[in-house]
Amino acid sequence: MSNNTVPVVCVVSASSGTGKTTFLERLIKEVVNRGYRVGTIKSDSHGFEMDVPGKDTWKFSQAGAKATAIIGPDKYAIIHKTDHRKELDQVIAMIEDVDIILVEGFKMSTLPRFEVVRRERGTDIVSPIEYLIAVVTDVKEIDVAVPILDINDIQEATDLLLANAALG
Amino acid sequence: MSNNTVPVVCVVSASSGTGKTTFLERLIKEVVNRGYRVGTIKSDSHGFEMDVPGKDTWKFSQAGAKATAIIGPDKYAIIHKTDHRKELDQVIAMIEDVDIILVEGFKMSTLPRFEVVRRERGTDIVSPIEYLIAVVTDVKEIDVAVPILDINDIQEATDLLLANAALG
Repeated sequence: MSNNTVPVVCVVSASSGTGKTTFLERLIKEVVNRGYRVGTIKSDSHGFEMDVPGKDTWKFSQAGAKATAIIGPDKYAIIHKTDHRKELDQVIAMIEDVDIILVEGFKMSTLPRFEVVRRERGTDIVSPIEYLIAVVTDVKEIDVAVPILDINDIQEATDLLLANAALG
Repeated sequence: MSNNTVPVVCVVSASSGTGKTTFLERLIKEVVNRGYRVGTIKSDSHGFEMDVPGKDTWKFSQAGAKATAIIGPDKYAIIHKTDHRKELDQVIAMIEDVDIILVEGFKMSTLPRFEVVRRERGTDIVSPIEYLIAVVTDVKEIDVAVPILDINDIQEATDLLLANAALG
């Protein structure tokens, strides 16, 4: 089921409010435009709500089901309660038939990543340089020995991403 | 990851509108009350909406991602687009750490099942008798050689379910 050879790249930032989600959204669009199949994984800190109140799956979850899944004609979904935070690697292994997996967050991982830096949120880089593909930013004077990309230059970020993932 | 020895039991009916979902919801509650961990899988015919518009995972899906996952402190979720309807067995294999899996629908499967019959929707039984644990109904005169349970007798249905799943 799993494909452990699929490249996985993170988009991280030191703090929230840097535009990480918007950057990732634009990156996904461009990678899909170039013909690649993309999986995404997001880190959630505070408890997300995925299901829609009143739907059958929601009712089953409310009734106490630990896991609720639904299988439709062109997609399936699973919401699984856990005792501990599920390991990223285990979720990566559940994503299949994609060419690349893009991950939002997980800055403590050892995965290759883009780090988003926004001047108004501070210019510290949290990623060890050995994991850093590029810094994506609205700041011009960042002193780090990796490419510094304009946060709006999605083409160049995609080029670098695909080259790094050996998909270019 | 998967546990292929977990018992799987369906709740099916000949048509919609028989109260299958409500029966299953009540069954889940009682099985959970008795201390078992329950997974559920629902068959969807027409294309479900699981995600919430405006959420990040929804944005990533709209951007073209084939699979979107989110990992929170006490649950994770995956929505995965597919070219064909995902096989029930493959989704069963993704559910872990449960004692029993209850499935709504999939009447064409060869899984053991309860069939819900509601007088106003017709009294035909669609399940081959070899797969039938019991008929759950508001009709008294059903001629089939398995237990006929009142649709409101959740205790007896749970007893039978757990006995059938060797959990009783």
